[in-house]
Amino acid sequence: MESRWGTGRMEAFSDGVFAIAITLLVLDIRVPPAEFADLWSGIAKEWPAYLAFATSFTTIGGIWLAHHAMVRRLQFANPRVMQINLLLLMAVSFLPFPTKLVAEAIRDPDAERAAVIFYGACLLVIQILLASIWIAAARDRSLLRPEVTDAEVNAIMRAATPSLGFYAGVIVLAFVAPKVAAFGYLVIAVMAVMRARGDQIDAPATSAA
Amino acid sequence: MESRWGTGRMEAFSDGVFAIAITLLVLDIRVPPAEFADLWSGIAKEWPAYLAFATSFTTIGGIWLAHHAMVRRLQFANPRVMQINLLLLMAVSFLPFPTKLVAEAIRDPDAERAAVIFYGACLLVIQILLASIWIAAARDRSLLRPEVTDAEVNAIMRAATPSLGFYAGVIVLAFVAPKVAAFGYLVIAVMAVMRARGDQIDAPATSAA
Amino acid sequence: MESRWGTGRMEAFSDGVFAIAITLLVLDIRVPPAEFADLWSGIAKEWPAYLAFATSFTTIGGIWLAHHAMVRRLQFANPRVMQINLLLLMAVSFLPFPTKLVAEAIRDPDAERAAVIFYGACLLVIQILLASIWIAAARDRSLLRPEVTDAEVNAIMRAATPSLGFYAGVIVLAFVAPKVAAFGYLVIAVMAVMRARGDQIDAPATSAA
Amino acid sequence: MESRWGTGRMEAFSDGVFAIAITLLVLDIRVPPAEFADLWSGIAKEWPAYLAFATSFTTIGGIWLAHHAMVRRLQFANPRVMQINLLLLMAVSFLPFPTKLVAEAIRDPDAERAAVIFYGACLLVIQILLASIWIAAARDRSLLRPEVTDAEVNAIMRAATPSLGFYAGVIVLAFVAPKVAAFGYLVIAVMAVMRARGDQIDAPATSAA
Repeated sequence: MESRWGTGRMEAFSDGVFAIAITLLVLDIRVPPAEFADLWSGIAKEWPAYLAFATSFTTIGGIWLAHHAMVRRLQFANPRVMQINLLLLMAVSFLPFPTKLVAEAIRDPDAERAAVIFYGACLLVIQILLASIWIAAARDRSLLRPEVTDAEVNAIMRAATPSLGFYAGVIVLAFVAPKVAAFGYLVIAVMAVMRARGDQIDAPATSAA
Repeated sequence: MESRWGTGRMEAFSDGVFAIAITLLVLDIRVPPAEFADLWSGIAKEWPAYLAFATSFTTIGGIWLAHHAMVRRLQFANPRVMQINLLLLMAVSFLPFPTKLVAEAIRDPDAERAAVIFYGACLLVIQILLASIWIAAARDRSLLRPEVTDAEVNAIMRAATPSLGFYAGVIVLAFVAPKVAAFGYLVIAVMAVMRARGDQIDAPATSAA
Repeated sequence: MESRWGTGRMEAFSDGVFAIAITLLVLDIRVPPAEFADLWSGIAKEWPAYLAFATSFTTIGGIWLAHHAMVRRLQFANPRVMQINLLLLMAVSFLPFPTKLVAEAIRDPDAERAAVIFYGACLLVIQILLASIWIAAARDRSLLRPEVTDAEVNAIMRAATPSLGFYAGVIVLAFVAPKVAAFGYLVIAVMAVMRARGDQIDAPATSAA
Repeated sequence: MESRWGTGRMEAFSDGVFAIAITLLVLDIRVPPAEFADLWSGIAKEWPAYLAFATSFTTIGGIWLAHHAMVRRLQFANPRVMQINLLLLMAVSFLPFPTKLVAEAIRDPDAERAAVIFYGACLLVIQILLASIWIAAARDRSLLRPEVTDAEVNAIMRAATPSLGFYAGVIVLAFVAPKVAAFGYLVIAVMAVMRARGDQIDAPATSAA
C-alpha cells in the first residue's frame, strides 16, 4: 500500500506557518524619524505599506480558510499531497518578500510595474498550489473522508478556480495601471474571504474537534 | 443552512497569531552602541520601549483571555464571526507598528502627541473588533453551546464595554498630556487582565480539553 | 465559586510564546561583510553571539520543561496562576533583548559588566516567576489533579529552588568576572535541563494526551 | 522507574520551532533600492538568497517529516530523547544564520568556500541529531508504541543514514566547487522530502489523531 499520513500534524504545522507569515508582514512597516516633525503626514505617507500588509494578510487569511475546508475533508495525505502542501507553505512564507518590495517600490515610477507584477505572480503561484492540493486529493478517493460527496469535491474545486482567472486578469492590468492592480489584489482577497465555505459536513464529528 | 465552521482551528490559529504578535514586540528594543560607555544609563534611557512593550504585551494578553472566554462558549462560527475574527487578528498583528512608533516618538515633542493618539486608536479598534465578535455570535443563539445562559451572554458583553469608554477617554487625554496617556493605556490593559473571567461553564467538559 | 480556566489553551499559548522567543534569538547573529575576506575568522569572532544564543535557548528549553511538569499536574488555573503565567511569558519574550545586549557588549570593557548583570537579573526574574506559578498553584489544592501527591508538590518546589541561588551567586560573580559569569549562566541552564523530571504521574491518562 | 514524558507537548513544541524557523528565513531577502531602476534585474540578482531560502526551507520540511515519522512511533520520551530533541531544535533554529551567510557570501570569491562549508556543516549536525533521537529511542523498546516492529525501527534508521553520507560528500565537494555544492544541498533536501515515509502504522489509531 502507498505511504500515508494522518492529517492532524500537517494541519497544525500549516496553521503555524500561516500564522507566522501573516504576523511577520508588519515588521517592515516603519515611519522614518525624518517624518516625526509632522507625524500624521508621516503616518499617512506609509499607505503603500498598509495596502500591502492588508492585501497579504487577507490573502493568507483566505488561503487559510480554503486550506481548512480542504483538510477537514481529508482523512489521509499521500506523498503527493504532502509535497504540494510543503510547496504551498514555502510560497506563503516567501510572501513577506514581495509584500515588502511592492510597498517600497510602488512610488517609484521605474519600479512599480515590475514590483506589482512580481507580487501578483507570487499570489497566482500560491493559488495554483492551493488548487493542486485538492486536485491531488480528489484523484484518490480513499484519501477523503467517507462522507464527502462528489458534489462537495466539485464545489471546492469550482471555488478555487475563479481566483486563478482574477489574478491572471489583474496581472495583465498591472502592465498598464500598476497602482490600480495593487488595489485589485486586495479586492480579490476580500472576495475570497467573503466566499469561504464552512466545514460543517457532519455536525457531530466536527463539533468534537 | 448557513455555512458554519467548528471553532477548534479558529482558536488554534488565533492563539498562534496572538503568541507571535506578543513575541515580536521585543525585536525593536535596542540600546545603541554609543550608550555602551555608560550602559546602565543606556538601559534606563530605553524606558519608553519597555513601557510600549509592557503595554502592548498586556493588551494582547487581555485580548487573548477575553477571546478565550468567548470562543469557549461557541460551538460554531458563522461567516460573520470568522470575518470579524480575521479583522481582529489583522489589527493585533498590526500592533507592533504603532508600538514601535510610540516608543520612538515619545521623546520628540513634535511627534509624541500624534504617536500616542495613533497607538490609542489602534487599541480602540482592537477592542471594538473583539466586542463585535461577541455581538455577532450572540445574534445567532445556535452558534453558542447549549449550556450558555443569557446571563453569561450579557456578562461577557458588559465585560467588553468599559474598555471602549476607557480608551476613548485616554485618547482625549492624549491631546493634552501624551506621556500620561501612554501610562493610561497600560493601566487599562492591566485592569482588563485582572478582570478576566474563567471559562468554567461546565467543569466536566472543559477539564477534558 | 472563584473564576477558573481549563489549562489546555494556556498550555498551547505558553508553548507558542516559548517556541517563538527561542527561535527569534538567531535574528541578531550576523557576520559583518567586512569580515568576509577571512570568513572563518569572522565566524569565530561571533562567539559571544553563539554563547548568548545557546544560553538563552537552553534556559528557555529548561523553563519549558519545568512549565510542562507544572501544567501537567494542574487541572485548572485560577486568576492568580493565569496572571503570573502572563508575567512569565512577558519575561521570556523580553529575553531576546538582554541576549542581544550581552552578545554585543561582552567585548567592550566599559559595558560587559552591566550587560552580564542585567542579563542575569532577567534570568533570575524568569526563575522567580516560574517558581511563583507553582507556589500559587500549590496554595489551592483544588487546582491540582486529584492524583498529585504532597510529595510531588514538594519535589517540584525543591526542583525550582536551587536555580534561584545559582543565579544570585553568578550575578555576584559577574561584578568581578563578567565573562566567567556569562559561561556560568549556560552551566545553570544545562543543569536545569539535565535535572528535568518527566510528567508520567499516571501512565494511562498521559499516554492519551 | 526512569523519568518519562508523554510525547504530545514535545511534538507541538517541535512543530512550533520548525514552523517559525522555516518562516523567519524570508526576513533577510531584500532588493536594495539602488536596484529599483531596473527592478527585474534586481530581483534576478537575488538568486543566491532564493537558493538559500529554498534549500533551508526544504531541509527543515524534510526534518519535520522525518521527526513526525519518529515521534508517531513513540509513546514516551526519556530524558535522553528530550535532551537530544532540544539540541535538534537549537540547531534548526540556528539555521537562519548560516542561511543568511551563504546568501550574502556566495558571490564573494574570498568568502564563498567558507560560507558553503559552514552551512553544510550545520546541515550535517542537524542530520546527526535527528538520527540520534532515533538511536536513543530504539535503545529502550518500552518508549516505542507496542505495535512498532523491529523492521520499522530498522527502516527508519536506514532512512536517516544516506543523508549523512550525502552531506559529507557535498561538503568535500564544496572545497573545490562551492557553488555546485550549494545546489547539492538543495538536491539532498528535495530527495529527503521525496523519500519520506508515512505514519500509517495502524490506521484506526492514527485516523483519530
